[in-house]
Amino acid sequence: MTVQLLQTHFAVAVCAISGVLAGSGKRVDLFGVLVLGLVTALGGGTIRDVVLGNQVFWLGDPAMVINGVITSAATFFVARYWVVPALSLALVDAFGLALFTILGAAIGWKAGVGVTNSVVLGVITGVAGGILRDVLVGEIPLVFRREIYLYATAAVIGATAYVLLQQCRGDQDINRLIGIGVTLTLRLAAIRWKVSLPLFPK
Amino acid sequence: MTVQLLQTHFAVAVCAISGVLAGSGKRVDLFGVLVLGLVTALGGGTIRDVVLGNQVFWLGDPAMVINGVITSAATFFVARYWVVPALSLALVDAFGLALFTILGAAIGWKAGVGVTNSVVLGVITGVAGGILRDVLVGEIPLVFRREIYLYATAAVIGATAYVLLQQCRGDQDINRLIGIGVTLTLRLAAIRWKVSLPLFPK
Amino acid sequence: MTVQLLQTHFAVAVCAISGVLAGSGKRVDLFGVLVLGLVTALGGGTIRDVVLGNQVFWLGDPAMVINGVITSAATFFVARYWVVPALSLALVDAFGLALFTILGAAIGWKAGVGVTNSVVLGVITGVAGGILRDVLVGEIPLVFRREIYLYATAAVIGATAYVLLQQCRGDQDINRLIGIGVTLTLRLAAIRWKVSLPLFPK
Repeated sequence: MTVQLLQTHFAVAVCAISGVLAGSGKRVDLFGVLVLGLVTALGGGTIRDVVLGNQVFWLGDPAMVINGVITSAATFFVARYWVVPALSLALVDAFGLALFTILGAAIGWKAGVGVTNSVVLGVITGVAGGILRDVLVGEIPLVFRREIYLYATAAVIGATAYVLLQQCRGDQDINRLIGIGVTLTLRLAAIRWKVSLPLFPK
Repeated sequence: MTVQLLQTHFAVAVCAISGVLAGSGKRVDLFGVLVLGLVTALGGGTIRDVVLGNQVFWLGDPAMVINGVITSAATFFVARYWVVPALSLALVDAFGLALFTILGAAIGWKAGVGVTNSVVLGVITGVAGGILRDVLVGEIPLVFRREIYLYATAAVIGATAYVLLQQCRGDQDINRLIGIGVTLTLRLAAIRWKVSLPLFPK
Repeated sequence: MTVQLLQTHFAVAVCAISGVLAGSGKRVDLFGVLVLGLVTALGGGTIRDVVLGNQVFWLGDPAMVINGVITSAATFFVARYWVVPALSLALVDAFGLALFTILGAAIGWKAGVGVTNSVVLGVITGVAGGILRDVLVGEIPLVFRREIYLYATAAVIGATAYVLLQQCRGDQDINRLIGIGVTLTLRLAAIRWKVSLPLFPK
């Protein structure tokens, strides 16, 4: 339980950072930056909980919102004076993707929605926050674009690995670690070797 | 029951096709295309169920997501080698609009939300998936634009016809058919004779 | 109860007007305008209710949708023949912001979600409708931009004042009035003296 809470807080902080940095160059003010940070950090999990009919995860724990606000504000001020290296951001972001995706898949699995829908809920949790962020700043969502290499696809494969292990071997903590590892490895390998999916024709 | 399920599956497949084709020329990759297909196919019904507090319709039936994924992937590969004629797409899309709109209105009516709100829920079910699709690819939603002729308006009139018949004559299967027929006829007539609503002034 | 209902109806009408006027110059037709009006008027409260797991507020009261439709249609026709002065619109819009924000914070507070989350729910209720409106017409949401001066920030401060008063002095009607007054005063002062938050660096 405490480990899952820690994971969630870490993922919230990481996604808040990526949300704030996406506002760069968009003439967004401090409040807009907080909203972008919070939406990126809490959006995916909120959609997952609403679809499942669960209580929204940040509603019962004010520390989630506080974490997102403080992380976003800190990122705002740091980014005004210091250029964050793109690669280190990509690494942290990959952790956020992996943690949130497997968290979402685990919550779906526990709710008994089956293999396919658990994977869908995992991917929603992992990528929907970033999609909302991109829509809010008026861009075609990053996860749809070839230039960032395998992103959501890493989440699909990692969530599938986790859910199939749960299905075949029963509920074990190691399954969660394997799912996170698969997602993370695929994402990092895709960045390293520039792996991408075929483009849709013009 | 089985007829309603078949209708839903047909509408899901049709909307997945239109979602995928909307990604054309947008530099979207295979995964992005699957997301666009699924969002278009499942988005409207998901919003309807969340607003009503019902279980989300695809959560209890993994075949919905599987249908959307397979249809989207097939459309992706077909569209790379073959140009889909716009008119045949418009025809199939009109069926999707009519089926989803009356389905949503019927679910709202059954939930006892009254005439006005049943029409609203029908229109949400019919058009919200397409609105989400257009927002995700960074365009002003098609349903708002004059160039496509009466679209959501056909849904409003068809849903209103259905709900008023339910109100006046009691729950009869023929009402559903009339609602679908009215929506479909209006939509096709609008395409054929280029009927549109007045534009908002600049 | 009746006062709260009146407040909600007034806020719905005001937000419908601002939603319709945002469609100006966007080649949106009459139906698109109705959707923009309804989304702006009902969007924030709908997200609040869905997040809280409450019944969506317009579902139990068809008069809400009817109010939004009639106000939107009237605005559409008036705006075709008459230019609405920007300042009077800004004044009415500030009322809408203040009423919806404190309404949302009060509903959150009553649901027992605590200080932080009540503020979040208040701000969502006050600004989410306008964010949806801007996303639908393809613009970076107004609330994120510096040019409109303190907007959501006024909502944050007003909601915080209201919630802290509820916390310290117990549930009193005067707290609601103070919250509305703080939000309104800050918003109007920001317009008058062009107060804005620091911009995010490019």
